[in-house]
Amino acid sequence: VINAGKSQHNEDQACCQVVLMDRSCSPRGDPASQEAEGGRQDLCFHYWGLFDGHAGSGAAVMASKLLHHHIRDQLRDLVGILQDSSPPPICLQSNSRAPLAERNRAPLAEEDVELSNDALPRFHLEKAVSRESLVIGAIENAFKQMDEQMARERTTQLVAGGCCALAAVYLLGKFYVANAGDSRAIIIRNGEIIPMSREFTPETERQRLQFLGFLRPELLGNEFTHLEFPRRIQHKELGKKMLYRDQNMSGWAYKRIVEDDLKFPLIYGEGKKARVMATIGVTRGLGDHDLKVYNSNIHIKPFLSCVPEVRVYDLTQYEHCPDDVLVLGTDGLWDVTSDREVAEVVTEVLMGHEPNDPCRYTMVAHELVLRSRGVLKERGWRLANDKLGSGDDISVFVIPLGGPGNYT
Amino acid sequence: VINAGKSQHNEDQACCQVVLMDRSCSPRGDPASQEAEGGRQDLCFHYWGLFDGHAGSGAAVMASKLLHHHIRDQLRDLVGILQDSSPPPICLQSNSRAPLAERNRAPLAEEDVELSNDALPRFHLEKAVSRESLVIGAIENAFKQMDEQMARERTTQLVAGGCCALAAVYLLGKFYVANAGDSRAIIIRNGEIIPMSREFTPETERQRLQFLGFLRPELLGNEFTHLEFPRRIQHKELGKKMLYRDQNMSGWAYKRIVEDDLKFPLIYGEGKKARVMATIGVTRGLGDHDLKVYNSNIHIKPFLSCVPEVRVYDLTQYEHCPDDVLVLGTDGLWDVTSDREVAEVVTEVLMGHEPNDPCRYTMVAHELVLRSRGVLKERGWRLANDKLGSGDDISVFVIPLGGPGNYT
Repeated sequence: VINAGKSQHNEDQACCQVVLMDRSCSPRGDPASQEAEGGRQDLCFHYWGLFDGHAGSGAAVMASKLLHHHIRDQLRDLVGILQDSSPPPICLQSNSRAPLAERNRAPLAEEDVELSNDALPRFHLEKAVSRESLVIGAIENAFKQMDEQMARERTTQLVAGGCCALAAVYLLGKFYVANAGDSRAIIIRNGEIIPMSREFTPETERQRLQFLGFLRPELLGNEFTHLEFPRRIQHKELGKKMLYRDQNMSGWAYKRIVEDDLKFPLIYGEGKKARVMATIGVTRGLGDHDLKVYNSNIHIKPFLSCVPEVRVYDLTQYEHCPDDVLVLGTDGLWDVTSDREVAEVVTEVLMGHEPNDPCRYTMVAHELVLRSRGVLKERGWRLANDKLGSGDDISVFVIPLGGPGNYT
Repeated sequence: VINAGKSQHNEDQACCQVVLMDRSCSPRGDPASQEAEGGRQDLCFHYWGLFDGHAGSGAAVMASKLLHHHIRDQLRDLVGILQDSSPPPICLQSNSRAPLAERNRAPLAEEDVELSNDALPRFHLEKAVSRESLVIGAIENAFKQMDEQMARERTTQLVAGGCCALAAVYLLGKFYVANAGDSRAIIIRNGEIIPMSREFTPETERQRLQFLGFLRPELLGNEFTHLEFPRRIQHKELGKKMLYRDQNMSGWAYKRIVEDDLKFPLIYGEGKKARVMATIGVTRGLGDHDLKVYNSNIHIKPFLSCVPEVRVYDLTQYEHCPDDVLVLGTDGLWDVTSDREVAEVVTEVLMGHEPNDPCRYTMVAHELVLRSRGVLKERGWRLANDKLGSGDDISVFVIPLGGPGNYT
């Protein structure tokens, strides 16, 4: 993590931990099942988190200290289920199973029949749920809990601003990469780049936000329109036809400008300058509970989501070599260094170190940060190609997938 | 198009046309621009549409007769703009452009400055809009217009039921494939399969529908819950913990069952049996304006979308051979025949005909339909592998991309 100098306290924060989950009592509850689980171990997961704060470092600092605790709390009840070879139970029984008559509520579901004569309840439409999807659900809910804790404690703990959150969890042979914001994770495997996240910005989430603005116009405070226009409309242009997009459209069409279209667009600007309500450039993350449109009483939090997208990478499906890595970085890295350039630096630096040298991954991260910041010249930080370096805080994790001390 | 025999009137309908767009007057309006456009031709587009009706053939028949007219109407105003080499105008001027002072509405957009001293208005944040995205917008709006016409005329014209719609438009070197429903389009190029659509079903659109049910609970009519459960919950299970997903979750987690969870889930069932409100198995399409949950007054249309996803394929970016084709099919085809099997039939049948034989593509479509229906045996229609044939109407277009009479 490197501070760009734009703020006294680093707005990027990071955390890296091995987290132990104490086994809670058997969630199946019946004694036979508890006995069967007797031989199992407590579980632990490896954890890396990157938090890119904005409008202060408070949220990023808090998330870096606590998000993994929330993940642990969500996973703790699942320890037995995750280690069990049978599919997760749909319903946690507190008693042994007994024949039960099916409820018969909605008239159209002909699959639902009375089962009272059966020895065991059978459900004709029972969805199989994988252990993997329980871990995903646990991580999603952990982000939600973290966000709610920030909301609760924001007055006493001074949780300033908000933060993007990118977390990687290694558990039982799989990497779970959870992203809420504009940080990015990629795997570099045998020179190939495998994206492990996508960015959530006003542009990528335009339709979700417009849909909400359309359904809940009161959230727009009579100041904003849910429609998008390619530029500001002038009062003189009333009655003319201008390009627009609504929440349903990917393409553009012309519409006749009416008074209501003169409001400021909910989503406005392009690329790094795109903003929600002219205020914020990321649409997912933690915190921001008090964020309002400047000089107004319009809250922005309803448009932001704290829910990450979780992608799974099964480490056991492929034989990894010591040069295969998972790279996590904040936008300070990715704004100036492309996926391909990152992969090149990885190859270059790793080649300069012995495969069993545990420092080699740290050296890659170090090099990535320095290259992305560049060198201080009279006209600011410059990259090797004389382009502008990142003016942002930069944070990078380089995680070996098949190196010394790997997770299998 | 083949009728499966489950209904007297074929619920699958199709249409194939070359559609001429008369040039309307220059949308730029100024005489100089009109003169410059003088040399241009009227435009036409090639059009194929597949319509898979449900609960009657009315909507499918109407869409097959009229959707291309709506597409023409939307594109007509764009004829001049699409043939112009300069980017589409953001605003259609009825007079020549004059210097205009920018409106300055939202306080945070520092990019917006007064421009009154400038010779031409300049907008610091003006989004570039491509001609391609105007065609996409036109097709999206044409679907909307078609759906609105069905709503208006459903009493007088007896537009029964609804239909999935898959349309391919070839215009100025590009294919635009628009899909609303569970039909599918693929390109087979040099043996490689390129998906040109995705299906919209209760499963693929779960989160969009749950989000709407969450924001507008009145649409659920006190009968349904926006939460998803892996199976029906029994009254006896109140207070127990069961797996669920809400509108934000991809994974699953346990929650304690409360009274409200006993309502029927908005989205329920798996695969072909997945339903919205226990009623309908597709979530996009045209029509269905009167569709209600059985024995209730709960409308389903608010959860359905008539907006297609439009994918673009640039025919000029690749040299196509006579065996390269675009295949459009209703779910009657894809339910029993995989993309790979379709590609194999394409190769096999085309090899049996001369490259310049224009019937060869019709023969492929014919063969795909027959193979997917199978042969009538004592236990119903059977495929070559003795699996059950498609019990559904089956429709297929096989469109040559580089064959005789291609579009370039």
